Amino acid sequence: MLKFALIGAGRIGRMHGSIIAGHTKTELVWVYDILEDNAITTANTTLARVAKSLDEIFEDDSLDAVLIASSTETHAELIVRAAKAGKAVFCEKPIDLDIKRVDWCREQIQGLQVPVQIGFNRRFDPSHRKVADTARDGGIGNLEQVIITSRDPNPPPKEYYLASGGMFRDMTIHDFDMARYVLNEEVETVMAMSATLFDPVAKEIDEMDSAMILLQTASGKMCHINNSRHATYGYDQRVEAHGSLGMIRSENQHQHSTETFGAESSSSRAPLHFFFIERYRQAYLDQFDAFIETIENQQQPLVGFEDGRRALMLANAAYQSLEKGQAVKVDFGE
Amino acid sequence: MLKFALIGAGRIGRMHGSIIAGHTKTELVWVYDILEDNAITTANTTLARVAKSLDEIFEDDSLDAVLIASSTETHAELIVRAAKAGKAVFCEKPIDLDIKRVDWCREQIQGLQVPVQIGFNRRFDPSHRKVADTARDGGIGNLEQVIITSRDPNPPPKEYYLASGGMFRDMTIHDFDMARYVLNEEVETVMAMSATLFDPVAKEIDEMDSAMILLQTASGKMCHINNSRHATYGYDQRVEAHGSLGMIRSENQHQHSTETFGAESSSSRAPLHFFFIERYRQAYLDQFDAFIETIENQQQPLVGFEDGRRALMLANAAYQSLEKGQAVKVDFGE
Amino acid sequence: MLKFALIGAGRIGRMHGSIIAGHTKTELVWVYDILEDNAITTANTTLARVAKSLDEIFEDDSLDAVLIASSTETHAELIVRAAKAGKAVFCEKPIDLDIKRVDWCREQIQGLQVPVQIGFNRRFDPSHRKVADTARDGGIGNLEQVIITSRDPNPPPKEYYLASGGMFRDMTIHDFDMARYVLNEEVETVMAMSATLFDPVAKEIDEMDSAMILLQTASGKMCHINNSRHATYGYDQRVEAHGSLGMIRSENQHQHSTETFGAESSSSRAPLHFFFIERYRQAYLDQFDAFIETIENQQQPLVGFEDGRRALMLANAAYQSLEKGQAVKVDFGE
Amino acid sequence: MLKFALIGAGRIGRMHGSIIAGHTKTELVWVYDILEDNAITTANTTLARVAKSLDEIFEDDSLDAVLIASSTETHAELIVRAAKAGKAVFCEKPIDLDIKRVDWCREQIQGLQVPVQIGFNRRFDPSHRKVADTARDGGIGNLEQVIITSRDPNPPPKEYYLASGGMFRDMTIHDFDMARYVLNEEVETVMAMSATLFDPVAKEIDEMDSAMILLQTASGKMCHINNSRHATYGYDQRVEAHGSLGMIRSENQHQHSTETFGAESSSSRAPLHFFFIERYRQAYLDQFDAFIETIENQQQPLVGFEDGRRALMLANAAYQSLEKGQAVKVDFGE
Repeated sequence: MLKFALIGAGRIGRMHGSIIAGHTKTELVWVYDILEDNAITTANTTLARVAKSLDEIFEDDSLDAVLIASSTETHAELIVRAAKAGKAVFCEKPIDLDIKRVDWCREQIQGLQVPVQIGFNRRFDPSHRKVADTARDGGIGNLEQVIITSRDPNPPPKEYYLASGGMFRDMTIHDFDMARYVLNEEVETVMAMSATLFDPVAKEIDEMDSAMILLQTASGKMCHINNSRHATYGYDQRVEAHGSLGMIRSENQHQHSTETFGAESSSSRAPLHFFFIERYRQAYLDQFDAFIETIENQQQPLVGFEDGRRALMLANAAYQSLEKGQAVKVDFGE
Repeated sequence: MLKFALIGAGRIGRMHGSIIAGHTKTELVWVYDILEDNAITTANTTLARVAKSLDEIFEDDSLDAVLIASSTETHAELIVRAAKAGKAVFCEKPIDLDIKRVDWCREQIQGLQVPVQIGFNRRFDPSHRKVADTARDGGIGNLEQVIITSRDPNPPPKEYYLASGGMFRDMTIHDFDMARYVLNEEVETVMAMSATLFDPVAKEIDEMDSAMILLQTASGKMCHINNSRHATYGYDQRVEAHGSLGMIRSENQHQHSTETFGAESSSSRAPLHFFFIERYRQAYLDQFDAFIETIENQQQPLVGFEDGRRALMLANAAYQSLEKGQAVKVDFGE
Repeated sequence: MLKFALIGAGRIGRMHGSIIAGHTKTELVWVYDILEDNAITTANTTLARVAKSLDEIFEDDSLDAVLIASSTETHAELIVRAAKAGKAVFCEKPIDLDIKRVDWCREQIQGLQVPVQIGFNRRFDPSHRKVADTARDGGIGNLEQVIITSRDPNPPPKEYYLASGGMFRDMTIHDFDMARYVLNEEVETVMAMSATLFDPVAKEIDEMDSAMILLQTASGKMCHINNSRHATYGYDQRVEAHGSLGMIRSENQHQHSTETFGAESSSSRAPLHFFFIERYRQAYLDQFDAFIETIENQQQPLVGFEDGRRALMLANAAYQSLEKGQAVKVDFGE
Repeated sequence: MLKFALIGAGRIGRMHGSIIAGHTKTELVWVYDILEDNAITTANTTLARVAKSLDEIFEDDSLDAVLIASSTETHAELIVRAAKAGKAVFCEKPIDLDIKRVDWCREQIQGLQVPVQIGFNRRFDPSHRKVADTARDGGIGNLEQVIITSRDPNPPPKEYYLASGGMFRDMTIHDFDMARYVLNEEVETVMAMSATLFDPVAKEIDEMDSAMILLQTASGKMCHINNSRHATYGYDQRVEAHGSLGMIRSENQHQHSTETFGAESSSSRAPLHFFFIERYRQAYLDQFDAFIETIENQQQPLVGFEDGRRALMLANAAYQSLEKGQAVKVDFGE
């Protein structure tokens, strides 16, 4: 059994805690949260111990891996600490909102032989993955264009907005990663448009609630992303890939497979899943399996540190494009 | 924690064992199988003990419930024994293939204050359940007609056929139960047609592989069932209910939500789930939850002994209709 | 140009009149209706002449074909008269409601070398036709089962009911013909159930408004038909064929190809076509094309007199099955 | 009956000719084509006369309207000539490939009281129109984003490319018009990306075969267009509109409403319509009806001269954006 510590036991942390505790190959031994009550709640349902300090965790030699689900600004430092302690690292996205901190982190862990996986869970969604696999394996010929639709059900509260780093770094970052995953060739150019169309809270704090983006690779492949902070019909998550031999798309999923026909509408489908925990349930499980496999086989993680870094650089390029009203070339460095 | 014993640790038994072991409110303490190796395998992955005999189980006063997943001919006697020992009973379908044995069992357990739930798991499928609930709650007005499509992916091997009691008692029995569930009014008349159209094994042993059935209630509501022992495109499980104000249907479910468009076909959906364990995964879990609730709240089970009995009587009536070439009235007794 | 006379200029007659007038290979020269005003209306928009009597039509030697769309009880005699006058005959369904009259008509036209086509237009619907063609050409392997769903939007008025000859002879007769078309092997056995579930007018005159039927061929192939005189969601017309290698179904068609997603429902389709003129528009055109081809090439019509006769015999058998509560064997004679 | 002349009797011209000849309110009296054989062919099937010269047409005082379907470079001059002769004008898109010629034409016809309708037929497609109407009428709340997918089945031959004026002016121009129609607010900013990804002919002549575009209005509404010169699965034409209360999309249409299920794929839809004549058949008819109504009621056409002009200006802006790699503001003038 691989021994895990969980750092950060808020909503997402608790979910990861229960996945670790329930997995046949892992054991949750430590839980830490700056709010001890959070840690206690999670420890009680998972038979883990509450760590009084981070030291207690990093000094435990029997520990194999650390799952970081604490607040964003702590990620970079915790990755460095865990990696230096020789623990495998699974870190929720994003690495940091500031590319300088990300680059500092990258420098610190360079050469350390531990896997660092970033939580871009959508790559593990069976349907989106099928799209990416089919595109990669030539199932639709040579890939030409990708269209990503990603629309949240409801805008977040003000505090969330203020801490988020802005829509491109918080929400679109998932789509930048999806674009890189499906395109399977590095993005070279970014063009972005945005607007605040409906959310008074966003308007108040001068944040966008809607956006459209174009990406292009060196060989000319193109990708479009459309985002909105609301969608009355539920969490809208679709990916469409066009190639020389055909098209494959992952459609939204419904809560059950019923259709109702009546005088008002001739056919209406069951509601969509409400938000990411329900919609990407299987993806969270599969992502964790992949991480275990990475540790067991000493492989490179499917979603590594560099993927986290590059998604952030695309978000930054999108902001630049907005500001200048022009296409921005991205330089990922060596 | 409710303490459970599992009797029968074949394929379905093992699945039940892992559900019991994984449920937050239950604990698997005993496993019994006439083949001790089966019991050991299940015990090893669930931390349960292997019972050397059934006595060991029924004499354990701390035990709350027994899950019977042994071979069909043992069900009736085990139900009686468990009920008399004061254990709550969950028994896989069918109760027995012989209505006389069922009636004997019924007599034996009459008046005993233990819940007995029969494993008609499809009632718990979220989609079929939505159809039944909508029909019951007037969501499509007064129910008028029901159409049940139930087609297995592949014919079973010869031994299975020979032990099955015939298609109506083995396979259609699920659909008879679904018909009773959705119609929500007792069936009065049965008409059946059958044929052996494709399976050489079925032909050899003079068994049907295809059937169509009509059912009607006292107030005139009608139900059609169509069955086949094969379906190249996967496990086909649909229920359609027509009422005075509209129609609701549960459609098949796909393994993922992708669609592929190419020169050959303009859109093709991901494959269906292959067979019942995958398709009805959630139903197995929900059925077990319902059983726990039944025990906790001392309610009547949603699928009781009498439901098991009546589904068998409909199967018998269908055989009679086949034989006589006429509509058969069913008398369920008092 | 083939010269046509139209006999009967009611709703369906007018539609046929405009098809004949608009077709590049045909010309409408005569219109007759016992209500002269009907004839005048149609003549005015088609540049045809109003016939004062049927004699005027049958004595016109230049006439090639007669399209009979008058009231049902006149069909048999008009077919005989037209066939004896050497005119090709297209007759709306049914030939007659009385099998004796049909047999008399059959005898009268025996040996005459004119094509007689019956208006079972659904055979020409591109979608249902694709199902039948695929079943026939082995596209789903050996055909095993067929499921026909045929539900009208609204019950007819009392006068229509009284003149209709009963649901099996008026409405189901289309489905009996579809069953024969898709099964592509003669039906041998019929079982029927019916009820009056919702329509007070039907109840008052002791007529059914709902039915379910089973058909079986000599080799064991089965077909189910379900009928209702109402469907709030629109005209429900589906055919599903199961074979040894797969299944093909023709689904309902929507007025346009839009889907709407909102807070109430996560996806709702555009309304279905309301009734047969809209739904089977292309079928009416294609059926007429087939008739022209039949005349030009002196072929047998795709839907001949005998098809009209046999559909009626299946309707009669269904009534017998209802009455006796048993399976009825059908003998079509030599 | 409104009397029409047809100028240009190539493929599209012939289609328009037969629509005019078949319409109950119009009569085709003249056909002109610089290749007289073309004119003769069309005249023969429509009972029209062949005009020896354009003068013959414009001097015919009894003529009500002119339908211009000749080659693009003749459009502007013919519009002017027809309008000055007092004839209603229906002109195929585009007005011209050169905005200077369009502006000259605009000046010439200023103040003349004749309707000039441009052939953006997609506005009349019942499904796309439903999307636009729903967006306009508040059926999805306030409109926020529009996504237009428009992909041809096959790249055109070299000569077509060379005469086309480039993809934005030839193909995307339909989508620019659709964007303006659905957005219902003028576009202010254009961003474009393009590539030559698959077509060797396009590569040879240095023309794009793939493109992605973003548009934005003054109030912030956004629109994405994706284009490709090929789509193996058929002509892909979809419009999706997102608003504050929901989303509506027009999906592709299939040749028939069948679905096939087999071992290879669990469900495959009938093929899409192949290209624009089949797909937009109804739109061509409805667009002509609208033109007739415009003449009869002396209304402004739904798609006027200015719509033709502005779509071209958006195409020009898209080329500018490509060249400069930046967002381009469009100034439509007064």
